[in-house]
Amino acid sequence: MTSAPTTRDQIVEAADTLFYQRGYEKTSFADIASRVSISRGNFYYHFKTKDDILAAVIALRASKTQAMLQAWHEQETTPLGRLCCFAEMLIQNRHAIQRFGCPVGTLCTELAKVEHPSQGDASMIFGQFRHWLREQFEALGLAARAEHLAMHLLARSQGIAVLANAFNDEAFIRYEAGLIKDWLQSLLPERSQ
Amino acid sequence: MTSAPTTRDQIVEAADTLFYQRGYEKTSFADIASRVSISRGNFYYHFKTKDDILAAVIALRASKTQAMLQAWHEQETTPLGRLCCFAEMLIQNRHAIQRFGCPVGTLCTELAKVEHPSQGDASMIFGQFRHWLREQFEALGLAARAEHLAMHLLARSQGIAVLANAFNDEAFIRYEAGLIKDWLQSLLPERSQ
Repeated sequence: MTSAPTTRDQIVEAADTLFYQRGYEKTSFADIASRVSISRGNFYYHFKTKDDILAAVIALRASKTQAMLQAWHEQETTPLGRLCCFAEMLIQNRHAIQRFGCPVGTLCTELAKVEHPSQGDASMIFGQFRHWLREQFEALGLAARAEHLAMHLLARSQGIAVLANAFNDEAFIRYEAGLIKDWLQSLLPERSQ
Repeated sequence: MTSAPTTRDQIVEAADTLFYQRGYEKTSFADIASRVSISRGNFYYHFKTKDDILAAVIALRASKTQAMLQAWHEQETTPLGRLCCFAEMLIQNRHAIQRFGCPVGTLCTELAKVEHPSQGDASMIFGQFRHWLREQFEALGLAARAEHLAMHLLARSQGIAVLANAFNDEAFIRYEAGLIKDWLQSLLPERSQ
């Protein structure tokens, strides 16, 4: 049984969207409150500062990321299939990426510039992907290079997001996601091909 | 003979640094004025809005980018050598990248979220690199793939910047810059190797 979202959940979901679409700095407390249509008093009951909301948004994103990685794991039975889910994510999210970039990358970028106390927590969402990707490369029989390969793949996805956003280029996302799949295929040990 | 920087030049240089280090949204008119130690009246004489300063900063960055590309062109005699200058730039700027990300990428990311009128101008700095990289790949004898290769290389550099910034990881920049050089070498026609 799924319970209805609480007021707190609604605030965090609204902030998640606004931080992604407008940026953290540009989103005001009032912007978030007006999205959920609650009184200022009720809002302050749940969150005292925008930093508190940010911490809750990062926790929500970490939880959604974990659920997505788990879903990929259950959906595909091979490490290659699971790694291809990562590339496929770029295509599935292409319109949002073209318009707003990657939610993880753009938040980390913004928080780093202002040395925000939550910067490390935001980077740990990258850490979740990094860890999961490393596990897939290990399962592919590439344990010695798994850490480098995971970071390389994560960086490829971020570079695609930055340029697809700057040039609003859907074809570029599709082309580069294809290159990633070719690259993943090329890593397979001979016997598996 | 180089003339002393004008007050206007000083304002634009200070804004360039602040927009890079803190972000555009987070930097106030007052922050910039206090850096150049001039009166509010004198400041307003040169710039009426932060958007006007942003346009001047983008023009300055475009001009510096053109000068850098020209310097690489004069410094190296082969297309491969020139392309390696691009990879080398990541290593040379590693400390600033670790701390603040790529100046072009992070500005484009920020402006896209707020649909800023200068977004297209900022993206054209990427366009300068893209055009120059394409010319080098063409000179390498890879005209048919030059556009794809230029965008791919630009994206690799951006991905490296985003992750090196998020994880403050110098070794990652060096490792990935090495991979780019290996990849460039692998593109050379057989006869040139």
